[in-house]
Formats: sequence, C-alpha cells, structure tokens
Amino acid sequence: MVSIKEEDIKVPLDVPQEARETYIKNYMEITQNTGRLMLFAGDQKVEHLNDDFFGEGVPADDNDPEHLFKIAASSNIGVFATQLGLIARYGMDYPDIPYLVKINSKSHLVKTKDDDPFSNQWYDMQQVAQFRENSGLNITGIGYTIYLGSKYEAEMLYQAAQLIYEAHQYGMLTVLWIYPRGTAVENEKDPHLIAGATGVGACLNADFVKVNYPKAEGIPAEEAFKESVLAAGRTKVVCAGGSSDDPEAFLKKLYAQIHVSGAEGNATGRNIHQKPLDEAVRMCNAINAITVEDASVEDALKIYNNE
Amino acid sequence: MVSIKEEDIKVPLDVPQEARETYIKNYMEITQNTGRLMLFAGDQKVEHLNDDFFGEGVPADDNDPEHLFKIAASSNIGVFATQLGLIARYGMDYPDIPYLVKINSKSHLVKTKDDDPFSNQWYDMQQVAQFRENSGLNITGIGYTIYLGSKYEAEMLYQAAQLIYEAHQYGMLTVLWIYPRGTAVENEKDPHLIAGATGVGACLNADFVKVNYPKAEGIPAEEAFKESVLAAGRTKVVCAGGSSDDPEAFLKKLYAQIHVSGAEGNATGRNIHQKPLDEAVRMCNAINAITVEDASVEDALKIYNNE
Amino acid sequence: MVSIKEEDIKVPLDVPQEARETYIKNYMEITQNTGRLMLFAGDQKVEHLNDDFFGEGVPADDNDPEHLFKIAASSNIGVFATQLGLIARYGMDYPDIPYLVKINSKSHLVKTKDDDPFSNQWYDMQQVAQFRENSGLNITGIGYTIYLGSKYEAEMLYQAAQLIYEAHQYGMLTVLWIYPRGTAVENEKDPHLIAGATGVGACLNADFVKVNYPKAEGIPAEEAFKESVLAAGRTKVVCAGGSSDDPEAFLKKLYAQIHVSGAEGNATGRNIHQKPLDEAVRMCNAINAITVEDASVEDALKIYNNE
Amino acid sequence: MVSIKEEDIKVPLDVPQEARETYIKNYMEITQNTGRLMLFAGDQKVEHLNDDFFGEGVPADDNDPEHLFKIAASSNIGVFATQLGLIARYGMDYPDIPYLVKINSKSHLVKTKDDDPFSNQWYDMQQVAQFRENSGLNITGIGYTIYLGSKYEAEMLYQAAQLIYEAHQYGMLTVLWIYPRGTAVENEKDPHLIAGATGVGACLNADFVKVNYPKAEGIPAEEAFKESVLAAGRTKVVCAGGSSDDPEAFLKKLYAQIHVSGAEGNATGRNIHQKPLDEAVRMCNAINAITVEDASVEDALKIYNNE
Amino acid sequence: MVSIKEEDIKVPLDVPQEARETYIKNYMEITQNTGRLMLFAGDQKVEHLNDDFFGEGVPADDNDPEHLFKIAASSNIGVFATQLGLIARYGMDYPDIPYLVKINSKSHLVKTKDDDPFSNQWYDMQQVAQFRENSGLNITGIGYTIYLGSKYEAEMLYQAAQLIYEAHQYGMLTVLWIYPRGTAVENEKDPHLIAGATGVGACLNADFVKVNYPKAEGIPAEEAFKESVLAAGRTKVVCAGGSSDDPEAFLKKLYAQIHVSGAEGNATGRNIHQKPLDEAVRMCNAINAITVEDASVEDALKIYNNE
Repeated sequence: MVSIKEEDIKVPLDVPQEARETYIKNYMEITQNTGRLMLFAGDQKVEHLNDDFFGEGVPADDNDPEHLFKIAASSNIGVFATQLGLIARYGMDYPDIPYLVKINSKSHLVKTKDDDPFSNQWYDMQQVAQFRENSGLNITGIGYTIYLGSKYEAEMLYQAAQLIYEAHQYGMLTVLWIYPRGTAVENEKDPHLIAGATGVGACLNADFVKVNYPKAEGIPAEEAFKESVLAAGRTKVVCAGGSSDDPEAFLKKLYAQIHVSGAEGNATGRNIHQKPLDEAVRMCNAINAITVEDASVEDALKIYNNE
Repeated sequence: MVSIKEEDIKVPLDVPQEARETYIKNYMEITQNTGRLMLFAGDQKVEHLNDDFFGEGVPADDNDPEHLFKIAASSNIGVFATQLGLIARYGMDYPDIPYLVKINSKSHLVKTKDDDPFSNQWYDMQQVAQFRENSGLNITGIGYTIYLGSKYEAEMLYQAAQLIYEAHQYGMLTVLWIYPRGTAVENEKDPHLIAGATGVGACLNADFVKVNYPKAEGIPAEEAFKESVLAAGRTKVVCAGGSSDDPEAFLKKLYAQIHVSGAEGNATGRNIHQKPLDEAVRMCNAINAITVEDASVEDALKIYNNE
Repeated sequence: MVSIKEEDIKVPLDVPQEARETYIKNYMEITQNTGRLMLFAGDQKVEHLNDDFFGEGVPADDNDPEHLFKIAASSNIGVFATQLGLIARYGMDYPDIPYLVKINSKSHLVKTKDDDPFSNQWYDMQQVAQFRENSGLNITGIGYTIYLGSKYEAEMLYQAAQLIYEAHQYGMLTVLWIYPRGTAVENEKDPHLIAGATGVGACLNADFVKVNYPKAEGIPAEEAFKESVLAAGRTKVVCAGGSSDDPEAFLKKLYAQIHVSGAEGNATGRNIHQKPLDEAVRMCNAINAITVEDASVEDALKIYNNE
Repeated sequence: MVSIKEEDIKVPLDVPQEARETYIKNYMEITQNTGRLMLFAGDQKVEHLNDDFFGEGVPADDNDPEHLFKIAASSNIGVFATQLGLIARYGMDYPDIPYLVKINSKSHLVKTKDDDPFSNQWYDMQQVAQFRENSGLNITGIGYTIYLGSKYEAEMLYQAAQLIYEAHQYGMLTVLWIYPRGTAVENEKDPHLIAGATGVGACLNADFVKVNYPKAEGIPAEEAFKESVLAAGRTKVVCAGGSSDDPEAFLKKLYAQIHVSGAEGNATGRNIHQKPLDEAVRMCNAINAITVEDASVEDALKIYNNE
Repeated sequence: MVSIKEEDIKVPLDVPQEARETYIKNYMEITQNTGRLMLFAGDQKVEHLNDDFFGEGVPADDNDPEHLFKIAASSNIGVFATQLGLIARYGMDYPDIPYLVKINSKSHLVKTKDDDPFSNQWYDMQQVAQFRENSGLNITGIGYTIYLGSKYEAEMLYQAAQLIYEAHQYGMLTVLWIYPRGTAVENEKDPHLIAGATGVGACLNADFVKVNYPKAEGIPAEEAFKESVLAAGRTKVVCAGGSSDDPEAFLKKLYAQIHVSGAEGNATGRNIHQKPLDEAVRMCNAINAITVEDASVEDALKIYNNE
C-alpha cells in the first residue's frame, strides 16, 4: 500500500507560512495519506443537466441529488466534488464528507457549433473560505474547468490562475479539469494535446489536473498517456471516468492508468452514481482500492461484487 | 392543512449563524408556515412591457401599477414579487405586504432571432439590504431569471450564484426563474430539459425555483413534471402561471402540480392581475387555498365564485 | 394654478431618512411647487453634434454653448439639463439656475443600421454629489437615456437602476429619457410601446420619464398618450419636444398632453434654443405658463408674442 | 503680445478649492501666460509606430526618442505631450520641460476596414498623480484621444469624462484629441462634423480640444473652421499639425487658424520633429512666436530661417 | 568584458524612491553587472503546449518541467522566465535562480484565422509581490506578451502599461515580448514594423523588449535590425531565439545582433532546453559568454563543445 508522509509533500511556494499546515492536512486527507486522489465527481447536474440522472439505464435513486451524498458518506473516497449549492443544502446531514467546491459550471445546451465553450466562475475564494467557516464543513479545496483552445480560453486561464493562487492563500487544494474544446480543436483526445493540457495545469500551479483519457493510434492508451503524466511534473494527473462503462473494463483501465501511465488517481462520476446506492458504494470502494490501496483488479472486482 | 415547524427548515449552510433567525422567519412567512409558496408575480411591466396590462380582454384597472399592490394587499398570498422601483413608490401605502425584489428584468423587444436573451441584474444585495432597512418594508427575498442555454448563460449563472450567496448572508430568501431559451434550445417545454433547469436551481442553492410547466408527449404533464420536482432535491419547485387561462382549468392544473407532481407552490401573475380588483382578489385566494390550505378544486372555485 | 404641498410628495422609499428633506426641496424646486416639470433640455451638443446649433434656420447665437445658459438664466423654467462639462464651465456665471446633470450621451454618427444604440454613463453618483459640493451649484438631479429594445438594453437598464438608486441616496431627482430604438424595434412611436417605456421608467423608480409623443392611427395622439401616462403610475411622464415646430402648434400640443393625456410637464430643447435669445426666453416662458401656471394656449401665445 | 492674468482664468467648477491654485499655475505655464497653447505632440511612436521617425525624408536623429526631448528642452513651447513611459525614461535629464501625459494610444495596424478604432487608457489619474509626485517632474496635465463615430465611442467618451473629472481633482489640465473615425463616418474633415467634435469636447469639460483642420468646399478652411471654435465655447480649440508640410505654408495656415478662425493654439508633431535638431528648434520657435507672441508669418519665418 | 556601475543605471522615474535600490539590485543581477540580458525563456509549455517538449528531435528529458530548472540552476544565465505556477512548484529546490514571472500566456490552439490573438494577464503585481515575499525567492521581474496589431491590442497595451507601472512600484524589472500578429498584420518580420514594436516598448516604459529578429530584403538582417534597437531609445532590445537552430549558426546570429545591431542581449528557450541537460548547460554558457562576456563566436563554440 502506497503512503506518503507530511514531510514528503512539496507545498507550493505561493502557500503562505500560516496556511501550510492546512494545506498539508488537506493534502493528506483527500489523498488518504497516499498522495493519490480518489475524487468522486458530482457536478454533472449543471454540466449535463438531468441527462446523467434520469432515463433509461439510470436507477430512479439517481434523480435525487441526495443520492450523491449518500454514496459519498458511505464509501471510501478521497473527496466529493460538487457545486456549493448542493453542499449548502445537504452538508448538515453529511458533515463528515471531505468536500471540494466545483467553482465553475455550464450547461451543455450551447454546442461548440453555436459558440465556443466558456464556463464562468460562480464564487470567489473569499466566499468559499467564508462558506468553509460558516458551514463548519470540511471544505478541502476547489475545482475549476478550462476549455483549452476555446475562444474564451483567455478568461478561463485567468480565472483558474486567480482561483488557484487565492485558494492556496487559504491552504485549500486545487483541481483543474482541462479539456481541449472549441472550433479550433480538431481532436480532443489526441495524446499529445492532452499532454499539453496537463502541462498547462502545471504552469497554472494546480495540485491536480483532471483530463480525459487519450485515444492513441498504434499504441495502447496507457502508454500514450505517459507523456501527459510526465509533462505535468509535480502537478498530479488524474483521469476523468467518462460515461458509464462495464465495471471490470473500467477497473482495468484505471489500474493501467495508475500502474502503467503513472496517474495519481481518478475522478469518477457516472460510473459510480448511475447505480443503486449499494452497488454505487461497492463500485466506489473498488475504485478506491485500486487507487490508494494498490489493490489488483481482481481484488477490486471482489469488492464490487461483494465477495 | 399542511404546516411546518421552524425546526423542520433546512437552513442552507451558507446562511451565517447571525442570519439564521431572519432566514427562518422569512421562510415561515412567505410559505405561510406550510413550506408551500404562493408567489404573486408582478414583474411583467418590464418583461412584457405594457402587453399584459392594456388591451383587449384586460380590464382598465390593470394599466395602473397600483392595481398589483391593491391585489397583493387584499388577498391571501405568500409574497409579492416585483421590481424595487415599484416597491419604493407604493410601499408606503402598502406596508404589510411581504415583498420579494425581482433583481433582473429585460424587455421582450429583442427576440431570440435577434440575439440570445440576457437579463442583467439591476442591484446588488448590499443595496437590497440597505433598501430593506431604509424603507422599513418587509423585504423577504429576491428573484432572478436565468435563460438556460442562452449564449449569455455564463453571466447569468454567475449573477445568480452571487446574488443567492449574498442574499443568504442577509437571511433573505431566493427564487430563481429558470427558462431554457436561446438559439440552441429546441424545445423549451421538454420535461427532461425542465428537470435539468430545476437541478441547476438546486446546484445554485436557490430556495425556490420557478419553471414553466412542461409539455410531454404520451403522458400527462403532471406525471412528466415529477422528474423536475425530484431533480431539485431540497430546492422547492413552483410553476409559472403563464398566460391567462380559464379559472377552473387553471386551478385544476395547479392542484395536479401540487398533489400529483409534488410542486411546492405556484408563481402566478397574469391569471390574477388581468382581472378587476375584486375578481383578482378572489382568484388569488382560490389559488392560495389550493396551495397552502390543501383545498380541493371545488372549494377553491367556490372562493373564486364568491359562493 | 396647480400647486402641491411638501406633504403631498410621495418620497420613494429608497431615499434614506437623512436625504428626504433634500429630495423634497429638489422636487418642489424643479416643479416650481406644482408637481409639474418644465425641463429645458440642452444635451444635444453630444446627441446631435452641431446639427441643432448651426445651419439654416438656426440663429448664430445658438452655436455658442453659453446661449443655453443665457436662456436658462433669464426664463421661467423648472430645471436645465445638460452635461456636467458645460455646467462646470459656465456655472460660475449662472449660479442661480437649477441644474440637472445628463449623465450619459452619445453621438448620432453610428446609426442603427451600423449597430444598436448604446449610451454610456460618464460619471457615477459619487462624482456628481462631489461636484454638487465642490461647485456650490444647485444640482437637483440627474438624467439618463435608455434605448429600449437595443441589444445593449441590459447594460442601460443596469446603469439606470444604479444611478437612480444612488441619486436617491443623495436626495437627488432622476429623469429617464426612454426611447425604443434598435434593429428589433419596428415602430418607435407606437403608443402601446411608449406605454411600455413609461412602465419601465416606473419599475426603475424614475421620478420623471421623458418619452416621445406617440403617433397613433385612428385616434388623436393625446388620447393614445393616456395609456402611457397611466402605465407609469406614480412616476411622472413628460414629453420630449422634438424638432422645431411652429410655436402655436407646439403650445397646442403641449396643452393637450397636459390637459388631455395627463402628462406632468415637458422636456423641450430645440423649440427653445433654436431661436434668438429674446425669442427663446419668451418661448420658454410660454411653455412654462402652460406647464405650471395652467395658462391657456392663447395666454401662452401672448407671452411668446410679448403682447 | 497677448497675455492673460490669473484672475481671467475661468476655473471649471469640478476643480476642488484645494486644487484651484495648481490648476491656475498649470494653465498659466502651458499657455505661457497668454491663454494660447503651443503643444509639441510626441505620441506618434505608438500611434504611427516607426513610420514618422524613420525613412525617406526623415533625418536619422528622429529615430532616437531622445530627439523629441532635445527639441522640447531647447525650444519655446507650452507643453510637450508624450507617453508616460518616455517621460519616465528621459525626464531625469530633461527636468525643466512642462509635460503632458498622453494617456491612451493605439497602433495604426488595425484599419477601420478591419475594426472600428478604439484607443484604451493606459493609466488612471491616481497613477499619473503619483508619478507626478514620485518623479518630481512638472506634469501639467493629460491628453486623451476620442474617435467619435467609432462603434467604441461609448467607452472612449466614458474614459475621457472620467479622466478629465479626476485630472481636475488634482489641478491638472486636460487636452482631448477628437477625431471622427469609423465605418459610420463618411467625411472626417467635414467642417460641421468637426464643430460637432469640439462641442463634444466642451460637454466633456476639456480645457483644450485638438481637432483636424477641416476641408471645406466653397469657402476657405479658416472661415469654415470658425464654426468649430465657437461651438466649443469656453473650451479652447487647437489644430493638429498633421503630416509634414512646407514651413511657410504651415505657418501661414497656423496664422489663419489663430487670427481668422479664432483657434487658441496648435498641437504640432511631425512638422517639428521630422527635422534635424537645430532646424526643429527653429521651427518650434517660429510656431511658438505666431501662437503666443502674435508674430507675423514673416517674423516667424525669420526665426525659422535663423535670420 | 562589458560592465556597468550602479550609478550608470537610468532608473525610470515611476520607480518610487523607496524601491530604487531594489530596482538597481535587480538590474545589476539579471544583467550580471553588464547591462546586457541573458534571458532563459521557459514559458512555452503554455504558449506551444507540449510541442516544444516532446517529439522527434527533442530529448526525453525535456518532457519533465524540472529540466528547465536544472538547466537554469547549472548554467550562467541572467534570469529564468517562466510561469508562476512552475516557480511555485520547483523553487524550493532551486532557490538560487533569479526568476522572472511570465504574467500572461495563451495556447496556440486558436489560430489567427479563428480569432486575433489575445494573451490575458494571470496575476496582478500585488500577487507577484506577495509571492516574492511568501516564497522568499529571488523574483526579479515580470514578463508580458503583446500582440501588436491584434484586434485585442487595446487590452494588452493597457495590461502591459499597468503591470510595468506597478512592477516598478515594487522595484521589479519588466520585459515585454512584442510580436505584431493578427489579421491586419501582413508581414510579422518586417524590420520597420519590428522597429515600431520596440518603440511601443519604450513608450510603455519596458526595461527590456523582446522581439523577433527581422527578415529584410536586400540588406543583412543585422543591419536592418539597427532601426529597431535605436527606435527603442533607453529601453533595451533583445532578440527571441526562435525555433531550434544549428548552434554555430545560432551563436553567429547572436553575435551579430549584439555587435552589429546593438542588441543588449537575448531571450532563448528552445535552442537551449531542446537538448539533454549537459549539452543544454553548455549551450547556455556559450550564449551567455557572447552576451555578457563579449566572447567571440569561436570562444563560445568551444564552450558549447566543451573544448
């Protein structure tokens, strides 16, 4: 089982002296003392509207936002990422979850053919810090999405840089979702382009950067993905889970991302919450086992199958 | 008759300790201690210019803005929503109405074919709070409209998030009007899309979200609307009244929204104020009876018919 | 002769207690204790560049900006509206004029076919209030133009709402010029549309709203204009004077606006200043006589003709 | 020889009491106690890039920015206008020049056919005032360019109004460059349009407004220009020198502008600095002689010819 | 060997008295007491994404961001320019490098055919100064890129002016990257246009301006480049290294830039870091020898070849 010590953490130098302890505490907590991140992603109610939560193949539970909180509270995860509004509404009943506030969100109604994507920040860090204090919740960090190659890239790079800088002033962690997207982007899953995205995450001082898993031609994805992991340097790379997949296939992919590509975790949403509560919890635990306990795919599947 | 107690209210966690009491008081007041909202909507003088207030089938009374205040003061309602300007002009003569300041408004002159809709905020919360204090009026909350799917969605999501967060700092309640609209939106009344809208309201931390009643194919609207009510979680869903309708048909629809779909109230404008004062008051009371007194449609019609 | 008392004034409730007295004093002053407004409009040097001040049919006097001040100082008027710059340059020699600062202005070079109209605010209220204090002048209020139906409507509604709210904090009065204009506007003089404009003025909390006189089909303009006056509620409606007209025709129109339509004054520019000083003063006084002294057209014409 | 006394100066009323003395001192200094302005314009390194400073017919000296400072320090001028950056770099060696900071500048690369012109402010007045204090230089005022009729006119009118208002708070003088330009502008040199521009300068409260010399049909330019001078009222009008001209023709034109049109000075750049130092100094002095010493063209030519 | 003394430095006059010493110390340090700048440019991970760091002809080392820090720490350089994020992540292990924070960056995904280039600032100077203090690192200055001739030129000129003014308040140095680019720019390497760019750098008060080396017709580039060096006056001109070149050709070009054109240094990235560490260090030292030690090309090649 992987593990890190507090003194192994390279605290970025924009974190002021008085916030270092908080930063380290948050880092240890959301990585479960391993340096690896199991992020349960629950921001899709804005990003995909109700498409992910209702319809064929989605259990009825998932239409209730509380489903996400029930999973997060009952599973082994590093952190649960969602909008501040939901945290404010359910946090009093789920006070033990480590939360990450997803700061920006947009719906998927405006397509790239209509306009290049822009996702606007909803809060500034002073508000998030105030919310941390007023709510008494364990708000460990923030998340922000950048659409690289969008005509609005400039504004998102600015917001991301500002939010990360300010989050660090409060000792909070930062996770960037970086997706190349826009009329100028030809192939969003090009491994070399995704390596560019992780490098941008590093230059922006993100603690973690979440990208889509590349699709390479001629070589396995997990090999192609190495470029992205290395290009990020000391910023850790985690893979988006994407749309729902067969659990075994999903867990195998995750194992390869970590053990072949060198990814330091995962950020999974639909593959978890598009299941009834009990199954969702087992899936969560299986993912967590691979991520932070160095479990094998077989062991993880046993967890999922409750064997 | 439905009723809630103060301790049943889940105060969102962005409300600071010192504003909780105000929040609860406002919540009890505008829901008449039931958790259900009868919102009398009077913001159309900007949204529809004078179309709703003058012309064939509209009584002459309605062209005078005071008509709205007379109705609000003489009826059973939870809250009266209109622009700050009108409240500032008539409030001294109608000091007992619970008010909700509609913060943004636009005219309907620019059509979607000309440009995607954007409704800009007119005030910040500091001003609204100052107005509450200077006026001595019972300003219980604010309203804000989002056109989801507009190219200007990003700015409206930001303004809504900010206003709700700041309103809660003052213990004020928040109601979002969310309408999918813009060149990218194909069917504004699609039930699944409207469920997306209520979910966005939840993620934005709205206390109430007002949406249009969906039009479903193959199933009754009240059945289709359930998805929207559930998707909002702890954020309460109310239906826009829409254009003037036959009173009985209107009341039946409202009854189904509440008792079948699970809506927690209504937001009605034209179906009330496009009537002479006395009839408007009776219509208001009939709507209120269904909403917060669990009256039957028959009982409500008796109220309307003054029987 | 009409007259009001201080206690008749409905001070809008955003005016704080400490500014009520100033508000009332300003209101009494610019309405000459009648509630009716004779506004001498002198903001055209930006709005129309030099077209109104030089050329065929315009006396040479009018090319000198001081012409406006000479008229304002020698006539009976309620208030003189112009840009802060001119007030700052001539005010020391005309200290007794009641001034209204026109806050936004644009040239007429960019036509609607080039771009929808946007007129940007030049100052904030803190600066206007500081100017009132530094200059020692009688700055009684501010004016602002909204082009309703322009693609930039949202920004102008916001600026207007802010300026009015802040002006009231200082006890200053507010006059909105509201003109429907833009590619989406088909008929700028449609009576029903103009009634929409006056209603917007009311929702924005304007003390006075200045609109163009409608052109109706089938009924006299003064009849059609009633809708606009009523739709504004407690916000007073005044008519723009428009381009130069025959004095008798102008005065008759004004009389009908007040005595038939119910308008509470006028806002006249070119019909005054496009005359030599002495004639301009007489025209001003004639207009004022109808407006605040309830003079007949005949009496007013005698004033104009110096009989 | 013309001359004014301090008490003749009409200090605009936005200048606060404590800054009046500074305003008057600056006014007397840059007008050399005459009320007339000899402004040496040196902002072309951004406006025209290196086109004015290097190439056929331009002496090699002119490619060194110091050339401008050498001329300004060795000639009789009222004020030298250039960007803050150059003043900051050369001011320590030329501490006796009265400076005017040109606040906005743009290159000429984007043509009107590509986009309407917009020149953005580079500093706010607080920075300019701080620079005046930190540098110990004689910073007497600021300059700003407006492209009237551009689609971005609204933003430039706002910036100009703000800068002038704030400059006056510090007792600094203000010079507007106003050029009608944009797709909506048909004839930039139309005398009537230029009179509109000077009128806008007056409404904006500029102390001086610099415009292009009109081209009239049927009457001499100096006659046509009178409209512009009068339309500006108490704001003083000076003419841009334009591209290099024959010295005698230039001086004759200047003489007519002042003695026929009534202009109160000039703003000359290329006709001065596109000459070797010694000749440039003599040209400067010749221009100054006409401007503030009421010299004849013959006398001025003698100065230029060193006779 | 060239050298300057502290008293030779013309400290720009916007640097306040209390920051002069810091400015001089930084100037001496990054010019290695010579007035010439050897800037190691490492901002390409955003500007070119991963194209410069991975692929054919690029050593595997270069994909790790730490490669840049290893080079910077082991070579003779004046300053290492990169994004704040990377400095924050690696600075604790490379505390002796003099750093320059590249404030703005954009990816190259959006091409000029899609939209004119705009590179947005990521931080303000208060944050950079706070970072200098919190990190304890030797942050000597900032860099900023302007795309002259872009439709977004106005915003970049503003940001540059602000950043330079504010950087000087903290005694920090400033380097502008100025590249003519946009649909309106026909020939980015035109010598006369590049001279315009360096002149803009001077007007903006940059301490150094980095431009592309011009391509002239009919005369050698080093001759054509003289115009640019002179046009910048007291602002020092350095040349961008551009894409990887043959070392000897590169060093010859550099020698000519300094000894023929009069450039005061270089800003080199790919020609250094696209080499294995040891070779990169030798290349760096060779470049530095020409730049600040007045070494011949032969001597520099010996350094590169480790002879």
